[in-house]
Amino acid sequence: MTDPVYKKIELVGTSSTSFSEAAASAIAKAGQTVRNMSWFEVVEQRGHIADGKVQQYQVTVSIGFRVE
Amino acid sequence: MTDPVYKKIELVGTSSTSFSEAAASAIAKAGQTVRNMSWFEVVEQRGHIADGKVQQYQVTVSIGFRVE
Amino acid sequence: MTDPVYKKIELVGTSSTSFSEAAASAIAKAGQTVRNMSWFEVVEQRGHIADGKVQQYQVTVSIGFRVE
Amino acid sequence: MTDPVYKKIELVGTSSTSFSEAAASAIAKAGQTVRNMSWFEVVEQRGHIADGKVQQYQVTVSIGFRVE
Amino acid sequence: MTDPVYKKIELVGTSSTSFSEAAASAIAKAGQTVRNMSWFEVVEQRGHIADGKVQQYQVTVSIGFRVE
Amino acid sequence: MTDPVYKKIELVGTSSTSFSEAAASAIAKAGQTVRNMSWFEVVEQRGHIADGKVQQYQVTVSIGFRVE
Amino acid sequence: MTDPVYKKIELVGTSSTSFSEAAASAIAKAGQTVRNMSWFEVVEQRGHIADGKVQQYQVTVSIGFRVE
Amino acid sequence: MTDPVYKKIELVGTSSTSFSEAAASAIAKAGQTVRNMSWFEVVEQRGHIADGKVQQYQVTVSIGFRVE
Amino acid sequence: MTDPVYKKIELVGTSSTSFSEAAASAIAKAGQTVRNMSWFEVVEQRGHIADGKVQQYQVTVSIGFRVE
Amino acid sequence: MTDPVYKKIELVGTSSTSFSEAAASAIAKAGQTVRNMSWFEVVEQRGHIADGKVQQYQVTVSIGFRVE
Amino acid sequence: MTDPVYKKIELVGTSSTSFSEAAASAIAKAGQTVRNMSWFEVVEQRGHIADGKVQQYQVTVSIGFRVE
Amino acid sequence: MTDPVYKKIELVGTSSTSFSEAAASAIAKAGQTVRNMSWFEVVEQRGHIADGKVQQYQVTVSIGFRVE
Repeated sequence: MTDPVYKKIELVGTSSTSFSEAAASAIAKAGQTVRNMSWFEVVEQRGHIADGKVQQYQVTVSIGFRVE
Repeated sequence: MTDPVYKKIELVGTSSTSFSEAAASAIAKAGQTVRNMSWFEVVEQRGHIADGKVQQYQVTVSIGFRVE
Repeated sequence: MTDPVYKKIELVGTSSTSFSEAAASAIAKAGQTVRNMSWFEVVEQRGHIADGKVQQYQVTVSIGFRVE
Repeated sequence: MTDPVYKKIELVGTSSTSFSEAAASAIAKAGQTVRNMSWFEVVEQRGHIADGKVQQYQVTVSIGFRVE
Repeated sequence: MTDPVYKKIELVGTSSTSFSEAAASAIAKAGQTVRNMSWFEVVEQRGHIADGKVQQYQVTVSIGFRVE
Repeated sequence: MTDPVYKKIELVGTSSTSFSEAAASAIAKAGQTVRNMSWFEVVEQRGHIADGKVQQYQVTVSIGFRVE
Repeated sequence: MTDPVYKKIELVGTSSTSFSEAAASAIAKAGQTVRNMSWFEVVEQRGHIADGKVQQYQVTVSIGFRVE
Repeated sequence: MTDPVYKKIELVGTSSTSFSEAAASAIAKAGQTVRNMSWFEVVEQRGHIADGKVQQYQVTVSIGFRVE
Repeated sequence: MTDPVYKKIELVGTSSTSFSEAAASAIAKAGQTVRNMSWFEVVEQRGHIADGKVQQYQVTVSIGFRVE
Repeated sequence: MTDPVYKKIELVGTSSTSFSEAAASAIAKAGQTVRNMSWFEVVEQRGHIADGKVQQYQVTVSIGFRVE
Repeated sequence: MTDPVYKKIELVGTSSTSFSEAAASAIAKAGQTVRNMSWFEVVEQRGHIADGKVQQYQVTVSIGFRVE
Repeated sequence: MTDPVYKKIELVGTSSTSFSEAAASAIAKAGQTVRNMSWFEVVEQRGHIADGKVQQYQVTVSIGFRVE
């Protein structure tokens, strides 16, 4: 059977700047150990507050990559 | 019956920069053919990955506009 | 019983720039009257359209803070 | 292949009276341009408030009709 | 063990008038064979369309009653 | 920062007549203490049954109002 | 009141072949004791694995039938 | 066709002690009239409050059993 | 702005054979009037029952295609 | 209009022992400032981990109380 | 503590034939590296379209296996 | 980029006693191979029934830990 199969893993990226940066941070980290990453889906968006201000944007992403 | 009625359509905007830009891209495209657009709702956020980095932010939006 | 208890309130922040700014706007406003804010969760993302363009990004956030 | 196929479109009907009237308003409007409408599903119920009272009931409906 | 236990059953009521009447119709029907009905929850709202107009409001309700 | 911020609160209105009346009842009650109410969203529809008939329609609404 | 009322029951059908067969199996079984079955909705799709292969497809269906 | 078929029924168990006891209570009650019960799923967890304290834990469970 | 934009439409395909065929039927029908179709998502699976057997598999699909 | 109206507030209770205790903790805390509490619904269950063990059970509850 | 513990992983299987084959493809692939697989749950069903026809059925499955 | 990144894995813990014990069992097992575990979220609660009684409580948890 030669139909491609993909695996999905879930990571939480963080950023002090924006949700888009937090997502990018998670994908960059995953890229250190995973090859063939193809797409991601945003699962959840949260954040940490300190001193009455947003201190950290947090984005949970599900990342898909082809299994060799 | 003169109560206003709205229609909703679903588009997927893309951007290499951010989720906010991707949403804006979809609305700008819809504005080429649809009049009276009033609001949008984010339905899904995904993205394309290439070479271990986010290459494209994708935002699915549902756009509401008044039916004349 | 001394286990900490948190309360959650829901606000909608707005911004002409981005979803991240809209979320930050809601938290900053809440900070004027609420102490001990600790985290937030994005509940919904919408926006207002005028003249065929995004005029306002809107983010509904649920904010958690410790009850004293 | 002669198996029937249906299309679904989403409209928001409004009424100053009730949710049922708001749904009926959306279907009546759609009937001006769409033929063979067969069923609808309620997707969301909202409303506009003014002067501390419900001014408008809003019902988002998904309408199914046979594609000829 | 004498803590009360409840059972829930799901019915779809219909009405040519309104969603509220459709829900009431389902409960009235259930009352012909079930005793001790205590509450209901609206699970889904749909409807049948004919000749471009709402012909039937349909409400799926989950009905709870105490098991003797 | 002068972008408007809204707060959302959740109430359950009741009525012996219809879901629309139950929603209106919750908004009217909220209007006694809250100013600048702008919109509401239906979160849940339930009801109380007695003697085999609907005795009370219950509608949970989330009400949005501008924070001054 | 003569508006039709339907009841919904939930069954899990199984098949070693496909999801479609599993759904059909549940409906066939229900037909041994229930009359006037009219429609079904797929609620969940699962399966049993043995020796590293799918051994059984499982489909949970909600079946609607008219109450006489 | 001899593939096994299961039926699912929904009950609400109650307990003054814990959620786990409330679930167990519903299953024990069902066991008085249903044979071949195999598994349960928690659908909802609620509770009754009186005098400012939890008086009753309530757990809605969906119970699966093989149809003979 | 040259970032690609996609539109999504919702169709219900039907088949007397299987869910997979019902989905394929909807896409084939859409292909008669829509160009550049790229992907689809299964939104709902239902079916029609007659004489105690599955008579028709129904699959609601959301189809994405690039807007030129 | 004398139909009762209820308000719902969301709290997160914590406990080192169990989910049931965490829920009870949130209700007890709310009872210090809120009167007429009538019911609660479990919205989310989470927990804090330290040294490879559950250190804190966290339960988010929505509490309903009658508005006077 | 000897109570069994299971791990769940998420894979996307593909097939040019049917959803059931796509699910089976993912499980077969997982079986090359994972032992003690016990069950799977369908999380999402999608597909790729080319030349106006379904070219690939895609099924995301969550696979459970006992941790030794 | 030094913003922390977390990974989430999903396990199913079991216990003959309670849901809280089942969750604790999954975290304890994960702690044998995973470092820096920080939080968990309850995804699903089920159980096994035998001889008409709850034999096993099952809790699916998503566990978050910092990626080094």
